[in-house]
Amino acid sequence: MMRDFSDSHRWLSINTATVRKQWALDRIIDECARRGIRAISPWRDQVAAVGLDRVARQLKETGIELSGYCRGGFFPAADAAGLKAALDDNRRAIDEARTLNAPCLVLVVGSLPGALNGSPVHRDIGRVRQEVRDGIAATMEYARQMAMPLAIEPLHPMQAAERACINTLEQALDLCDELDPARSGGLGVAVDLYHVWWDPKLQQQIARAGADRLLAFHVCDWLVPTRDLLNDRGMMGDGVIEIRKARGWVEAAGFAGHSEVEIFSEHWWSQPGERVLDLCIERHRQVV
Amino acid sequence: MMRDFSDSHRWLSINTATVRKQWALDRIIDECARRGIRAISPWRDQVAAVGLDRVARQLKETGIELSGYCRGGFFPAADAAGLKAALDDNRRAIDEARTLNAPCLVLVVGSLPGALNGSPVHRDIGRVRQEVRDGIAATMEYARQMAMPLAIEPLHPMQAAERACINTLEQALDLCDELDPARSGGLGVAVDLYHVWWDPKLQQQIARAGADRLLAFHVCDWLVPTRDLLNDRGMMGDGVIEIRKARGWVEAAGFAGHSEVEIFSEHWWSQPGERVLDLCIERHRQVV
Repeated sequence: MMRDFSDSHRWLSINTATVRKQWALDRIIDECARRGIRAISPWRDQVAAVGLDRVARQLKETGIELSGYCRGGFFPAADAAGLKAALDDNRRAIDEARTLNAPCLVLVVGSLPGALNGSPVHRDIGRVRQEVRDGIAATMEYARQMAMPLAIEPLHPMQAAERACINTLEQALDLCDELDPARSGGLGVAVDLYHVWWDPKLQQQIARAGADRLLAFHVCDWLVPTRDLLNDRGMMGDGVIEIRKARGWVEAAGFAGHSEVEIFSEHWWSQPGERVLDLCIERHRQVV
Repeated sequence: MMRDFSDSHRWLSINTATVRKQWALDRIIDECARRGIRAISPWRDQVAAVGLDRVARQLKETGIELSGYCRGGFFPAADAAGLKAALDDNRRAIDEARTLNAPCLVLVVGSLPGALNGSPVHRDIGRVRQEVRDGIAATMEYARQMAMPLAIEPLHPMQAAERACINTLEQALDLCDELDPARSGGLGVAVDLYHVWWDPKLQQQIARAGADRLLAFHVCDWLVPTRDLLNDRGMMGDGVIEIRKARGWVEAAGFAGHSEVEIFSEHWWSQPGERVLDLCIERHRQVV
């Protein structure tokens, strides 16, 4: 029943952070097009650097589609002005995602305000979890008008203080149940195996999510040892994640979209971009 | 209802790994005794370096008791000989814990065989989770004869590949329910806040554990940023963990034992041991 990726990379998508230090986004799109890669997931700063309209045009010309748009979120703020700025920024992200015809906006929800700069304003993770719920609820209204699904991405617990206070698939799905009990398709999850591979409830929660809540599927690998909490992700096949087994689970739940490669890695950023993309294609066929 | 730690360190315990690079265990015990610290939790290699009988004698002389003994576990093995060696070693750990009159043997359960050396023999985390269950079940028989409770310590998910495939309190308690449904007191958990602070189900699962399964309570802090996956733990009060709130939860569940300081940190290992112990006492009173 599982799709066979071994003889084609029809369902490969490249998250453009994977080669962000090698190339600007216009070059990344060209290099993907040249290799028959049919989808990408770009980051807002990369889009802004090239220009939104130009990127939209280039995607149309090359026939490359998006598997997601990175990213909205970072809802918890130090004060009311900060919260307003965050909500405004999320609306802009939705507008951009619409312009680029993204299937979803990925949400990295944020956590303790100030923690990303090493100076947390407070330590109340329960409070920011409430604020994230409220921020998503507020953003959903606009997202619904714009027909842009929001994909909550649970991040690895080692990033709970700075980047996301949603750290398991179960927690993300509990929030989906609360905010979208009708399963409208407007709210779901991005399953990034790097963040969730360790979870003893992974298979169970993927099944619970189902097709209407599985909005994105990200792959890379967990290296042994891992030397950095942020930028030491591995190429698929170089670590310990059972990627194909997990792809079987998401497909059994009804997911039929792209397998998106997202590798934050000082090592891979130091390699020629051509080599990285070629290897992504090879490993996509071999081990994803 | 919560115990007041502000004017006494009666309930402070020092996990002796905290000053392992400064001193051998006999010196650590002396330094603790000098400061009125009434409990420690030593590691097997530290005990072996000084001699089990000598440590037992010194504890008796100083009146210092144990809050736990570190550690048993590491059940998954590459082959049958490896498994037998692991089970034998766990029995020896129980014997030592008995000799030292420990209230429990802490289990770091292990994970993918070979991963700790950077060469995992396989990647099947589901399989090692079964092996851990079987290993604990086998070890419980001897532990029961020796009246030595076993405390499963869930480790942070960032250590899931190498050190422990039990990564949440819920998972540990599910195992307790399976292996000791009668809640005999012979199997429980060690709650180390460093490993579980991020868990959205922490409060709920502590309540579920209850007094008969809360065998140990470990504290330190999560630094922002954290620069190393293993040896960058913080002194209580220097990070983002809401330690007192969590102590309130374990005490509400009936826990009335020691608050054990366990700090793996290149920074604190580089400081004079006297200063580290003095600060542990100070922070225990101020923020624990």
